[in-house]
Amino acid sequence: MKPVFRQNQLFTFLLYCNDVKLEKKILDCGAGGNLPPLAIFAEHGYETYGIDISKEQIKRAKIFEEEHNLELGIIEGDMKSLPFEDESVSFIYSYNSIFHMSKEEIGISIKEIYRVLPKGGLAFINFASTRDFRATMGEKVRDGEYLQEEHGEKILHSYFEENEAEKYFNGFKIIYKENRVREGYASENRKIKLGFIDYIIEKI
Amino acid sequence: MKPVFRQNQLFTFLLYCNDVKLEKKILDCGAGGNLPPLAIFAEHGYETYGIDISKEQIKRAKIFEEEHNLELGIIEGDMKSLPFEDESVSFIYSYNSIFHMSKEEIGISIKEIYRVLPKGGLAFINFASTRDFRATMGEKVRDGEYLQEEHGEKILHSYFEENEAEKYFNGFKIIYKENRVREGYASENRKIKLGFIDYIIEKI
Repeated sequence: MKPVFRQNQLFTFLLYCNDVKLEKKILDCGAGGNLPPLAIFAEHGYETYGIDISKEQIKRAKIFEEEHNLELGIIEGDMKSLPFEDESVSFIYSYNSIFHMSKEEIGISIKEIYRVLPKGGLAFINFASTRDFRATMGEKVRDGEYLQEEHGEKILHSYFEENEAEKYFNGFKIIYKENRVREGYASENRKIKLGFIDYIIEKI
Repeated sequence: MKPVFRQNQLFTFLLYCNDVKLEKKILDCGAGGNLPPLAIFAEHGYETYGIDISKEQIKRAKIFEEEHNLELGIIEGDMKSLPFEDESVSFIYSYNSIFHMSKEEIGISIKEIYRVLPKGGLAFINFASTRDFRATMGEKVRDGEYLQEEHGEKILHSYFEENEAEKYFNGFKIIYKENRVREGYASENRKIKLGFIDYIIEKI
């Protein structure tokens, strides 16, 4: 069956990217996993690059790439130090990834995104919001930063107030923002509420 | 170029539909326009049906269908009286359409959706919310109902408080809800704020 990508907001990002007159070159920060969304961009004619900090997730993406006869260009790498030249990639996104770092590290990563984008280039970044049901769960590390169990490991999660993340956007213009609360079921009887704030920002 | 669909929430609906063990048969209420999103479902193996009240919008969809060698089954019809047998269509959606009716008509339409869905069938319906910048613009008709200019015509728009639309969901279980506020630019200097509440409901 044709894969269905879970990261539906990236279709919105694709629409914005298609409207920009820059080389169709895109980088996913946190690109690994079973269903790498870079495939959406490859399908629409983009030259794709990806980094992921996890060898395991890169391996999963490779299986997808082989099955679909794709080469997405995903390598091991760290968002805090992007292995790309200044102003070399027109579009960069990080979907459901950046909030697995501390707020300080997030600031460093967004400076890296700024460095690698050319003027007029776009980034899509989303944040977990304080309206999420997990926002104060687990072991508090710093304000809005909690260690939380995920797949049996303690993983740091950062949660943001409505406009808090915008302090990182020096040199950017916010061209799109969606603040959303999603209610659903994690299993048949377990109702959960997730909060996200999605941004598309343009380097000015 | 491969089309990019603006209705990204429908990819979420597709994921939910794929998980339901019913015939892959789907109906779009408000199916016309340049880029009919039923094509997403056709691409994923669904038998598609659509209705639209506007001949003009159906004509636009037909051009898309011819260009893409698709037959989406879009006919003229009214949501308030669906031209389908009881329990005959597994999945029904109405995206950015239903709020162009009065609240009374919306109630009638959702009863129709209930009638046409089998037990276990799913509907995706989204509403404009009172957080939208247009929520009290134009000529007030009734509470939360305003006549607003659209393409030179006065069109009725209904706006809903956070949980207000749920009064229509008798006989349904809400399995997904997303309350979102989207900020962006209508043109270079005109910032706007849109509010939507999206639901996926299951007939119980």
